[in-house]
Amino acid sequence: MFEAIASASTLGDALDSVSVLVDECKIRLNEDGLAIRAVDPANVGMVDLDLEAGAFESYDADGGVIGVNLARLEDIASMANADDLVHLELDEETRKLHIQMDGLSYTLALIDPDSIRQEPDIPDLDLSAEIVVEGAQLSRGVTAADMVSDHIRLRVDPDDEAFLVEAQGDTDDVDLELSREDLIDLKAGGADSLFSLDYLKDMNKAIASDAEVTIELGEEFPVKLHYGFGEGLGNVTYMLAPRIQSD
Amino acid sequence: MFEAIASASTLGDALDSVSVLVDECKIRLNEDGLAIRAVDPANVGMVDLDLEAGAFESYDADGGVIGVNLARLEDIASMANADDLVHLELDEETRKLHIQMDGLSYTLALIDPDSIRQEPDIPDLDLSAEIVVEGAQLSRGVTAADMVSDHIRLRVDPDDEAFLVEAQGDTDDVDLELSREDLIDLKAGGADSLFSLDYLKDMNKAIASDAEVTIELGEEFPVKLHYGFGEGLGNVTYMLAPRIQSD
Amino acid sequence: MFEAIASASTLGDALDSVSVLVDECKIRLNEDGLAIRAVDPANVGMVDLDLEAGAFESYDADGGVIGVNLARLEDIASMANADDLVHLELDEETRKLHIQMDGLSYTLALIDPDSIRQEPDIPDLDLSAEIVVEGAQLSRGVTAADMVSDHIRLRVDPDDEAFLVEAQGDTDDVDLELSREDLIDLKAGGADSLFSLDYLKDMNKAIASDAEVTIELGEEFPVKLHYGFGEGLGNVTYMLAPRIQSD
Repeated sequence: MFEAIASASTLGDALDSVSVLVDECKIRLNEDGLAIRAVDPANVGMVDLDLEAGAFESYDADGGVIGVNLARLEDIASMANADDLVHLELDEETRKLHIQMDGLSYTLALIDPDSIRQEPDIPDLDLSAEIVVEGAQLSRGVTAADMVSDHIRLRVDPDDEAFLVEAQGDTDDVDLELSREDLIDLKAGGADSLFSLDYLKDMNKAIASDAEVTIELGEEFPVKLHYGFGEGLGNVTYMLAPRIQSD
Repeated sequence: MFEAIASASTLGDALDSVSVLVDECKIRLNEDGLAIRAVDPANVGMVDLDLEAGAFESYDADGGVIGVNLARLEDIASMANADDLVHLELDEETRKLHIQMDGLSYTLALIDPDSIRQEPDIPDLDLSAEIVVEGAQLSRGVTAADMVSDHIRLRVDPDDEAFLVEAQGDTDDVDLELSREDLIDLKAGGADSLFSLDYLKDMNKAIASDAEVTIELGEEFPVKLHYGFGEGLGNVTYMLAPRIQSD
Repeated sequence: MFEAIASASTLGDALDSVSVLVDECKIRLNEDGLAIRAVDPANVGMVDLDLEAGAFESYDADGGVIGVNLARLEDIASMANADDLVHLELDEETRKLHIQMDGLSYTLALIDPDSIRQEPDIPDLDLSAEIVVEGAQLSRGVTAADMVSDHIRLRVDPDDEAFLVEAQGDTDDVDLELSREDLIDLKAGGADSLFSLDYLKDMNKAIASDAEVTIELGEEFPVKLHYGFGEGLGNVTYMLAPRIQSD
């Protein structure tokens, strides 16, 4: 069984963070909250989301799994104002999710969870650098990189104690240097990896400009990005595989 | 002869309510105000508009008929600010309409009224239910229905005293239930009809979100929607033919 | 050598005024400021821009010439907020322009100036009428003309002391009459010329709605439009060749 009431904005933030990577996903209706893990079709980007029961106005679940079409669910959530409450209830027999808000009822056909790509294992990595930065700064680096290239290099200079976002185009280069003062926090270790810009652009879309983003970075290793939402009771981790350095 | 001065916003509201259904229309320049009746090419949606002489700053007409291209006339009206006054004057000899606002003059070639589709007769119908609802609520039902289907069912439940907007998609359903408290007024009689959503979406575009919309509804009968504009001196009635219930 | 610091808004205004006509241009890095002259591929519209050294926070140049891709440079400038300072520095050896703003560095490959269309000579013309008008009024005339035609006629009526913007379409006509009271200034002489609307629309895009635009107009002669930006230390002159009157 599953029945919960959430604010439309918290629900929307949760869905957005997953829908930038995949169209469909499994949602685990755990006793202590919702959990989603998904990987994009190319196995390059992963998302791991937790939304604690405390983030809901009310929450009652016993561990089932449902499969949902994310675009549909986002469309419905967008019918509500940010402060509106959305009531979700699973009909076990018909395998439909009933969604209600202020007089409006939506009956969403669920997808067989077995038909959805398997949830990825998100590995524990021992990454040498940790950067905490405002969403707006990350967004600035991604936008600038996108002007010249489809790859982006994230790097920590342990001597300068700076985080560097770099992109090399055919003729033009761009780099954003964020020193310790520009960052919320920095655990400087040598770290340098190249990523596909497309994926980072998608992830960046879901990150609010005032979010605190923790970036874990290594040497030619995947990057992890963490941020919170729903007054800290929701947590998202993205993991993005590196590209081979091309020089 | 025809010469009149109207506020750009009143003129714009009048034109918009007709242009959502047809590209060209006849305008009757009656002594007591303007009147437009038009039906879409498929004979499914009709509009009947009256704008009383009192809605104008000045109005002088003796019963002629002109044919106009609505998109053109809307383009011109959009050059004015909402509070600007627009001066309209018919040149009988050249069959052109002179439109002036704050230094700007536009000479609009008219269309031969005989070349425009005939004005429909809008039948008197004895419809069993009458619902008065805010434009914003109607709009919400239409938007929600559009997520799952291209048909929309409007229904009154006389026992519950509720107005229901429903749509059934291939997999998902949506319904908006507005009880007596959510409505401005309700004359509850048994009423239940299915309509093409495309037409209702078009009509909905012309209805301001704070407009009071009176909906007359029957059993598998056309629906009528009335609303006022121009401080109550303008009146629009839409009539939409039903679709056969498909179940 | 060239090194300068400018506000992002002043730099953006300068680039916009040129990029509406051409994709690439030469920038003359004179000792007393920047200068750009360019003509569109069809030789119909020209721009002559000066930005005095005093418009910069700091400015140091010794007379070189660089070739730039305007869209690129505008993209970079758009990464800054209007009040941000942009630092520009030419690397003579690599022929690259280094652009920096608030932590962000962009290295722009320059274009060989010899590969860019030659700078036009902008002739001194003895034009009989001079009209000074707000950018917003000019824009209104251009927008209205665009509803009916792809040509625009600019005219001064010396008897009425009025500036007229006129357009004749196949069926509809439009004209905007600005009397002496509607204008900032008028030196009324007989003047009447027809222009391609496409070019005037492009030029109009770069002109702020509160700019004071000085229009020099003659009889079937090119028109000149002047306006200032950057607190009066930047000056733009557009010149547009006339079309032969078609009647």
